[in-house]
Amino acid sequence: MSNLMPPAHPFDDDKLKEECGIFGVLGTKEAANFVALGLHALQHRGQEAGGIVSHDPEMGFNSARRFGYVRDNFTSQKVMETLPGPLAIGHVRYSTAGSKGQTAIRDVQPFFGEFAMGGAAIAHNGNITNANALRRELIERGSIFQSSSDSECIIHLMARSLQRNIPERMEDALRRVEGAFSVVAMTRTKLIGVRDPLGVRPLVLGKVGDGWALSSETCALDIIGAEFVREIEPGEMVVISEKYGVQSHFPFRRQPSKFCIFEHVYFSRPDSILGGRSVYETRENIGRELAKESPVEADLVCPVPDSGTPAAIGFSLESGIPYAMGIIRNQYMGRTFIEPTESIRNMGVRLKLNVNRALIKGKRVILVDDSVVRGTTSRKIKEMILDAGAAEVHFRIASPPTAWPCFYGVDTPDRDKLLAATMSEEEMRDHLGVDSLKFISLDGLYRAVGEAKGRDKACPQYCDACFSGEYPVIPADKIDDGFVMKAAE
Amino acid sequence: MSNLMPPAHPFDDDKLKEECGIFGVLGTKEAANFVALGLHALQHRGQEAGGIVSHDPEMGFNSARRFGYVRDNFTSQKVMETLPGPLAIGHVRYSTAGSKGQTAIRDVQPFFGEFAMGGAAIAHNGNITNANALRRELIERGSIFQSSSDSECIIHLMARSLQRNIPERMEDALRRVEGAFSVVAMTRTKLIGVRDPLGVRPLVLGKVGDGWALSSETCALDIIGAEFVREIEPGEMVVISEKYGVQSHFPFRRQPSKFCIFEHVYFSRPDSILGGRSVYETRENIGRELAKESPVEADLVCPVPDSGTPAAIGFSLESGIPYAMGIIRNQYMGRTFIEPTESIRNMGVRLKLNVNRALIKGKRVILVDDSVVRGTTSRKIKEMILDAGAAEVHFRIASPPTAWPCFYGVDTPDRDKLLAATMSEEEMRDHLGVDSLKFISLDGLYRAVGEAKGRDKACPQYCDACFSGEYPVIPADKIDDGFVMKAAE
Amino acid sequence: MSNLMPPAHPFDDDKLKEECGIFGVLGTKEAANFVALGLHALQHRGQEAGGIVSHDPEMGFNSARRFGYVRDNFTSQKVMETLPGPLAIGHVRYSTAGSKGQTAIRDVQPFFGEFAMGGAAIAHNGNITNANALRRELIERGSIFQSSSDSECIIHLMARSLQRNIPERMEDALRRVEGAFSVVAMTRTKLIGVRDPLGVRPLVLGKVGDGWALSSETCALDIIGAEFVREIEPGEMVVISEKYGVQSHFPFRRQPSKFCIFEHVYFSRPDSILGGRSVYETRENIGRELAKESPVEADLVCPVPDSGTPAAIGFSLESGIPYAMGIIRNQYMGRTFIEPTESIRNMGVRLKLNVNRALIKGKRVILVDDSVVRGTTSRKIKEMILDAGAAEVHFRIASPPTAWPCFYGVDTPDRDKLLAATMSEEEMRDHLGVDSLKFISLDGLYRAVGEAKGRDKACPQYCDACFSGEYPVIPADKIDDGFVMKAAE
Amino acid sequence: MSNLMPPAHPFDDDKLKEECGIFGVLGTKEAANFVALGLHALQHRGQEAGGIVSHDPEMGFNSARRFGYVRDNFTSQKVMETLPGPLAIGHVRYSTAGSKGQTAIRDVQPFFGEFAMGGAAIAHNGNITNANALRRELIERGSIFQSSSDSECIIHLMARSLQRNIPERMEDALRRVEGAFSVVAMTRTKLIGVRDPLGVRPLVLGKVGDGWALSSETCALDIIGAEFVREIEPGEMVVISEKYGVQSHFPFRRQPSKFCIFEHVYFSRPDSILGGRSVYETRENIGRELAKESPVEADLVCPVPDSGTPAAIGFSLESGIPYAMGIIRNQYMGRTFIEPTESIRNMGVRLKLNVNRALIKGKRVILVDDSVVRGTTSRKIKEMILDAGAAEVHFRIASPPTAWPCFYGVDTPDRDKLLAATMSEEEMRDHLGVDSLKFISLDGLYRAVGEAKGRDKACPQYCDACFSGEYPVIPADKIDDGFVMKAAE
Repeated sequence: MSNLMPPAHPFDDDKLKEECGIFGVLGTKEAANFVALGLHALQHRGQEAGGIVSHDPEMGFNSARRFGYVRDNFTSQKVMETLPGPLAIGHVRYSTAGSKGQTAIRDVQPFFGEFAMGGAAIAHNGNITNANALRRELIERGSIFQSSSDSECIIHLMARSLQRNIPERMEDALRRVEGAFSVVAMTRTKLIGVRDPLGVRPLVLGKVGDGWALSSETCALDIIGAEFVREIEPGEMVVISEKYGVQSHFPFRRQPSKFCIFEHVYFSRPDSILGGRSVYETRENIGRELAKESPVEADLVCPVPDSGTPAAIGFSLESGIPYAMGIIRNQYMGRTFIEPTESIRNMGVRLKLNVNRALIKGKRVILVDDSVVRGTTSRKIKEMILDAGAAEVHFRIASPPTAWPCFYGVDTPDRDKLLAATMSEEEMRDHLGVDSLKFISLDGLYRAVGEAKGRDKACPQYCDACFSGEYPVIPADKIDDGFVMKAAE
Repeated sequence: MSNLMPPAHPFDDDKLKEECGIFGVLGTKEAANFVALGLHALQHRGQEAGGIVSHDPEMGFNSARRFGYVRDNFTSQKVMETLPGPLAIGHVRYSTAGSKGQTAIRDVQPFFGEFAMGGAAIAHNGNITNANALRRELIERGSIFQSSSDSECIIHLMARSLQRNIPERMEDALRRVEGAFSVVAMTRTKLIGVRDPLGVRPLVLGKVGDGWALSSETCALDIIGAEFVREIEPGEMVVISEKYGVQSHFPFRRQPSKFCIFEHVYFSRPDSILGGRSVYETRENIGRELAKESPVEADLVCPVPDSGTPAAIGFSLESGIPYAMGIIRNQYMGRTFIEPTESIRNMGVRLKLNVNRALIKGKRVILVDDSVVRGTTSRKIKEMILDAGAAEVHFRIASPPTAWPCFYGVDTPDRDKLLAATMSEEEMRDHLGVDSLKFISLDGLYRAVGEAKGRDKACPQYCDACFSGEYPVIPADKIDDGFVMKAAE
Repeated sequence: MSNLMPPAHPFDDDKLKEECGIFGVLGTKEAANFVALGLHALQHRGQEAGGIVSHDPEMGFNSARRFGYVRDNFTSQKVMETLPGPLAIGHVRYSTAGSKGQTAIRDVQPFFGEFAMGGAAIAHNGNITNANALRRELIERGSIFQSSSDSECIIHLMARSLQRNIPERMEDALRRVEGAFSVVAMTRTKLIGVRDPLGVRPLVLGKVGDGWALSSETCALDIIGAEFVREIEPGEMVVISEKYGVQSHFPFRRQPSKFCIFEHVYFSRPDSILGGRSVYETRENIGRELAKESPVEADLVCPVPDSGTPAAIGFSLESGIPYAMGIIRNQYMGRTFIEPTESIRNMGVRLKLNVNRALIKGKRVILVDDSVVRGTTSRKIKEMILDAGAAEVHFRIASPPTAWPCFYGVDTPDRDKLLAATMSEEEMRDHLGVDSLKFISLDGLYRAVGEAKGRDKACPQYCDACFSGEYPVIPADKIDDGFVMKAAE
Repeated sequence: MSNLMPPAHPFDDDKLKEECGIFGVLGTKEAANFVALGLHALQHRGQEAGGIVSHDPEMGFNSARRFGYVRDNFTSQKVMETLPGPLAIGHVRYSTAGSKGQTAIRDVQPFFGEFAMGGAAIAHNGNITNANALRRELIERGSIFQSSSDSECIIHLMARSLQRNIPERMEDALRRVEGAFSVVAMTRTKLIGVRDPLGVRPLVLGKVGDGWALSSETCALDIIGAEFVREIEPGEMVVISEKYGVQSHFPFRRQPSKFCIFEHVYFSRPDSILGGRSVYETRENIGRELAKESPVEADLVCPVPDSGTPAAIGFSLESGIPYAMGIIRNQYMGRTFIEPTESIRNMGVRLKLNVNRALIKGKRVILVDDSVVRGTTSRKIKEMILDAGAAEVHFRIASPPTAWPCFYGVDTPDRDKLLAATMSEEEMRDHLGVDSLKFISLDGLYRAVGEAKGRDKACPQYCDACFSGEYPVIPADKIDDGFVMKAAE
C-alpha cells in the first residue's frame, strides 16, 4: 500500500538515526499542548512525522497525525483545539521498520485500539526483534493490521489478552515482545510508561504542577517547566493516575541492564541528563579521552558541526590547541530540497556546510566528528578543507568504529555499507585521504561515560553492539532475513 | 477520533442522499484508470470522498484514498501511476454510518485486509442493520477497528472465518450481516460482486474488451465503453477471474426481492438502465401519471432543476401545458462555500437557483419536483417564484410523501424532521403556502415503474419503506437506539 | 514572464467564450460580499480568475485576486474580512488578450493605480483594438506595465491625463481607446460605469437598498436582491456617489449602436433580461424560427446540454415533436482534469456527456445546439448518438454559421479553425456525418431577437461580425498581425 | 492593498535584521540554478521572500517570486525549468520599507520594467532615504507603482530617463537616489552591479567558469564554486557582458567610504570575507578586545547561540576561562509557529533555547552576546540561567550600546524601543538583573575590525550611526516623519 509523500529528511544522511521520541502528560490543562512542546524538544529523535492522541472526559479520544515537523503541525490553535483534555501522549518518528521507502500516514504513531473495556493509545520507541513471527501469528488468528509498523503488534496482542484491564493486557503483550522498547501509553484515565528489561532506550519521569510527564529525554521536561524526577528503570512499568499517583511494577524477568551507549555519543541532546550528568559533559569527556589517546600537533581544533562540537571543545581543553569554527553550517538547511534539480543534487554537503576559508588557509587542522558511518560526508568535508588550503587534516572520531548495524530502534545501513565493517583504521585513513584518523577506543568511551575501569568484557555495562557486534537480544527477524552474527570468540 | 476536513457536500441539503457508488474492473491494462472513470460517472452517489485499490502481480496491492471529487484526485498521471495492474476496485462515499459529523480518511473505502492466504479489498454500498452488535462481538474477540465505518465489520468477519479461501470467507462473513449491501471486492486474482438476498441496492455486470466490470449503475459502464451484460441478481455472488471467467453462486437463503424504488425516483442517473428501461423514461412516466392523477389548469410546467426535469417533461407531454425553464441553476455551484461569511450563509438557495423573472411574471406555474424531504427548499423556491410575480404556484411531486427514514444505505433526516411524518398533504400545502400541492400515489408510482396493477400490498414488489414505513429488514441497531416502527395494521 | 498555473478551463472547448464579467456596488455594508455574489452569478462570463478591490474610509483600498472560481476564493470570512468598506468592484476573466498560454496573477483585474489626487481601480469587459499602438506609445513615454493585459493601457492613459479629477481622466483615457468596452471603475467615493459608443458589451444599473450596483447582466442583480433599473446606454458614462446619486454623461461622439447579437445566442445567462425580454424567451424564439425555417420529420427533439436547451424547447413547441433529454450531462464535470493521464485525455466529451441509450435506440433524433465553432464536439456527439442506435440524426443550430473571429472581447479560434469559414453548409453536413444540418438564417435570428423585419443590411442593428464578417470597428492590432478583412461587396 | 500571508520570520525578534541579499550570474548554463544556490547562502540576510529573474535569448525574461525560504521554492525542477538562460539575478528580502505589517508578493524583488529599448530587472539592498519625495514626484508625472517598495522608484526613474541605453539610464536614476544601495541588475545581455558612493552595503565580484557573479557576500560565491575576485568599490558601477567582460565606471561624486560596521558584528556570515579577513576572525578579535576591556573572574564563558559564538571563543582564548555550551539551541526552530496557541506564545525563547542545567549549576557564567537591542531576550536568558542554578551571570556584549535606529537598509525598532537609547550601562545592568554588564567600546570595536588607532572622530572610517547617532546621509523621509537627529556636539 502506497502514498505519495516525498521521502523524509535525508539531512545528515551519513549519520545513524534515532527512530523515535515519545512523550506523555497527565493531569494538566491542555495536555496536548505540553505534548506538542515536548515533541518539539525531542524532534532530533525523529523528523519524518508526529502524532498526538488526547483524551477528554467529555470529548473522548481524539488524534492528529501529520508528516513533517511538530512546529509546523501541532502549534496552531485550529489543530490543538481538536485535542482537548488533561491526558495526552505523542510520538515523533524517523522510520525504517515500516513501509519500505515511503511511509503512509497510517504508520504514524500513537496507535489506538478500542477494547471491550475501553480505548488505549500507545507510542513506542525501539524495535521488536520478533515482529515478523508475531505478525504472522496474529494474522492467522484474524487480526487485521492497519499499518506496516511492527509496533502495531503490541496493540493486537493487547486486544487478544485474556486480562481484564488495560495495564495488565499491556504486561501480557509486552511479555511476548522481544527487543528494545520504551513505551508511553494511555487509557481514559491512566498514563503508562514501560522500559524493556534491558533498558536499551531511555525514558524519564517528570513532575509538572500537579501532574506528571513521561519523556524520552530530560530536555523535553525542561521545555514545559517540568521537574526531572528520575529515570524509569529497566524492566519497570509505571501506571500513573490522578487518583493513585505513580505506581511502579516490574512485570519482566530481571536482567542486567544494557543502555544504548550511542545515546551518549550522538542520539540524546547535549542538554539532557543521562546517568546524573549532562550529555554535553560526557561528550566533552570523550573529547578529552580522545586527546589523551590520540594526540597530534596542530594549529586548530574544529568540530564537524553541530554534533562534533562538545568533543572538539573537550579535545581543545585537554590538548591546549585553540578551538575554532573552521566549518560553518547554513542554518536554513533544516530539511533537504524537494524534487531537486540535478545540479543541486550534486552539491551535496556544500548546501549545508561551508569552510571558513580565510581562517583555515595554511593551518594544520584537527577535525572532530562524533562518528563515521558510510564515510561519504567525511570525505567531502576533507575535500572542502583541503580546497580551502589547509596544510594538514587530522580526523578524530568521538566513537569507536561503527562496524555492526543496530536492530534496537536505530536506522543503520546494511553491514556492507558501514565503512568500518570492511576496512581497518589505516585503510579508512587512506580511503578518506587524511593525514591521520583516530577513533576513541571502546574502553576510552566507557571511561568517558563514567566507567572508571572501562568496559566489563564479561558483561558489558551498555549495549555497544554497533561497535562490538555483541547483541544483547538475538535479532530473530534479521537472522531469518539472512543476517550473520559475529562468531563467539 | 477527529480530523479537520470541512463538512462534506451540503449541496442539495434538502434531498435524500445515496451513500455510495462502487465499481471494479478485471482484465484490462490500467484497470485503475477505468475505475476512476467509472467512479466519476457514479459521483452523484457520493461526493465526499473516494478510494481505489489496485493489484499488480509485481507491485502487489496499492491504494489511494482522498476527500473530494474523483476528477480532482484520480486523474493525474502522478496519482494513477501509483495504482498499477489489471485489477482494481473503487468506491465513492457520501457518509452517515460512520464518524459523526466529520469523516476521517481512514473511513474512506475500499477497506483492505491481509489474511493468511493473501490480501483482499472490499467496497460496500448499503447499510448493515446489525453492525453495532457485530462490532461489539468482534471487539470482544480481539479485533481492532481501523475506522468508524460499519462496513469494516465485513473484513473482520472474513479475517476470523474458518474457510480457506477468500470468496468462501466472504460468504461466511456476509451470512452474518443483516441489511442492504451490494459489494465489490478483489483478491490478487479475482473480482467479486455480491448483492444481498433482497437486492436492495443495484449492481450490474459489464464486459470491457477481454475483461469484466462491476458497477452500481450502467451509466458507468458507458463511460469506459463497456457493454452492459446483466444485473447481478438479488442474493447472487459472482466470482470473476481471468482463468475461469464469471462464476455465479447463490450463498444466501432465497427471499422475495425488494429493490429500492427510490433509485427510480431520484438516486440513479437518468441515463442508467434499470429493469430494462432508461431511468429517464420511468421518470417521464411518473410525470405522466402525476398529470393524470392531479391535473390543474396552468400556463407553464417548470421543473425544479435538475432532478425534477424528466417528470416535468412527462407532465407537460400528458397535460399539453408548455414546458419551460422557469428556474435556472447556476452551473458553478457544484459544491457549497467553505467557511462562508454570515451574509452568504443567509443567501441559501439563491446561490444556486434563480427565477427567470421575465418569463414567470403573471403566469400560473406548475412546479414539478422529485420529492419533499424537510420542505425547506420547496418553501424558498415558492417564495422566489412569487417574488418574481407568478400568478399561481402549483407543486406536483414525483414521489409519495417521504414519511419514514431509510436504514439501507441512504442518508435521511430523523423522522421528526421529515415534513410528511408530521403533516397531512393539506397541512403541507398550507405550510408551503402554495395554491395546490399533490404527491403521486404509491400505486401510481408502482404503475410508472412498470407494475401495471400497482403495488402488491401483501408482498410489495419493491422496498418502499421511506413511503410506507414497511421495512423489509428489521433495523436492529436503530431499534436499540430508540426508533419505533410502524404498528402492524 | 511566466507562472505555473495550469491552463484554465478547457471545458466547453468547442464554444466561443465570453472573456469577462464585471460588477460594482456603492453604498451598502460589506460591499465586497455583494460583489462576490454578483461575480458568482457572472461566473459563466469568465472562469479562469477573479478579483475584487474595495475601499473603506479608514482602511483605504484593499484587493484580492485569485485563480479559480469565485465560490472557492471569495466566500470565506478570512478573505472577505480583508475587503472592508461600502464601495467595491470586481471582475471575472476568461483570458486571451493577455499572456500567451498562461495567465499570471498580475494579469487579473481590477487594475489599480495611485494618482496624485488619489487611487482608482478599474475592471474592463471587452477588447481594445488599438492596444499595441497605445502600449508602445506609453512605454516610450516612461510607463511601466505591470501586466500583459491590454486593459492596463486605460489606467496608464489616466495617469498621464492632464485633467484634475478621476472621472475626467477616465473620459480622456477612453477617448484614446478603440474597440469594445464596458467598464466598471471606482475612486475613494465614486462608482463609475461606462459603455463604449457602440455599446457592444452589456452593462446594467441596479438599485440595492440605499445603494447602487453595476453589472454585466441582470442575473447578478437578482442574486443580491437588487432591482433592475435600466441598461447603461451605448456611449454613456454614469458617475455614482452617495452624495449626488447617479450622474449621466455622454463623453463620446454619437454612433449607431451595435450590441453583440451573440449575447442573445449564447453568452448571457437565460435568466438575464436583454432588451426588455428574458434571454430564455429569445432563445425559445430562435428555436421556433428554426423549426419554421428548417422542419424535419422525427421522433424526438433533444438539446445538446446545456446551452441548446431553450432553443430545443422552442423547436419542440413549434414542431409538436416531443422534447426529451437524449444526452445527459455529468454535473460533476465543472472543470477539466488537471495533468490528465493519456487514457483520460482520449475520453474527450464522454467525460461530461452520456447518451440516454435506452431512450435513443431506433429513434429519429433532432439535436439542437446553439452554435458550431470547430465542429469537433458536434462530431463526437453525433458518434455517441449513432453508437447508441439512433435511426437518424438531424442537427439544427440556433445561430448562423460562425465564419469570422470576434475581436471585441470574445475568445474565438483563428479563422482557419472555424468550420464555417472553410466549408459550405452541405460540406459541413458531410463532414459531421449527419442526416441533415441546418443553421438559422441571419434574418431569422434578427426576427427572433425582436427585429420583425429582419436585419437592416445598410446598417445592421447589432454587431454580427462573427457571422457576417462586417466589423463595426477596424481591428487595427489584428490587421497589423496579418488578419485580412472581408472585401467590401 | 493587502494579502493574507502570515507575518514573516519573527525568529530572533530581538535582533537587528538585515533587509536583503542580492546575487547575479552571467555566462553559465542554468544561471538561475546558481542564483538559487547563492540566495540560499545569503538566506540570513532575508527570510521573508525571494525572487529570481532570468533571461534566455529564445524565451525572453522569466520570473518567479515566492514567500518563504529559497530551499523550499527555488530548488524543484518544475520551478527552475521556468527560469532558463545564461543570465539571472535574484533577491531575498526581510522587509520594512514596504507595506506596513504584511508584504504582498508584488513587493518581492527583482523588479522588472519594459523600456523602449528592452527590458531590465533590478534587485536592491539598502534603503532610499528620499523615497517619499521621489515617489510623489513620479506619481505626479504619471508613473503607476506596482508595489509599496521604495526600491521601485529606481525602475520608474530609469523609465523616464532621457538616456538611450539601460546602464546610462540606471546611472541617471541612481544619481537622483539618496541613501544606501547596493544594486544588482540585468538587461538582455548585461549583468550590472552598483554600490552607493559611501559603500554602506557590501557587494563582491566573483568568477565562475567563463562567467561572472555578483553577490552581497563571499560565502555565496563559495557555494557555487566561484572564485572571489574583489569587492565592488564604493561609488562603482560594473557592467558585465559576455562580449566585453567587466567594465568599471564611477558615475557618482567621490565621498569618503562608510561601510556598515554592523556587517562585521552581526549581519554577514562568519565564513564571508570582509576587508581581506574572515568575519569569524574579526568577531573572535572583538571577543578578545572585550576580555581585555572588561575582564571578570568566572568558571565558564558561554555564547548566546549562535551569533555570540565567535566572540565567546575569543573571550575564552584571551581570558583563559574555559569555553562551554551552556545554552543549547533547538535546531528545529528555524521559523516561528504559525497562528500559535496562547500557551505557546508565552513560551518565548524557551522554544528555541534550553539551558544545559547540569553543566551550569553552581557556576559563575560569562554570557557573550553580539548585541542588545530591546533587551527582552537578554532578560529571559538571564532568568533561564539563574533558574538552572548559576552562581553569577556576567553579560559581555560584542558591540557598543545600540542607541540609534538604522535608516540604510536594516530593520531596527523605533528609538524609544532601543534599551540603550533610554538607559545608561548601569541602568541596563539593573534592568537585566545581572551581576555585571559590559559593552565593547566604540574604539575597541574599531580596533577589532583592524583600525589600530581606533575610531577617527573627525571622519569615522565606518558608518556607525546605530552606536554614535552620526548619520552619514541625512534621512530626509524620516525627518519628515518626525525623527530628531542628535544635536551636533
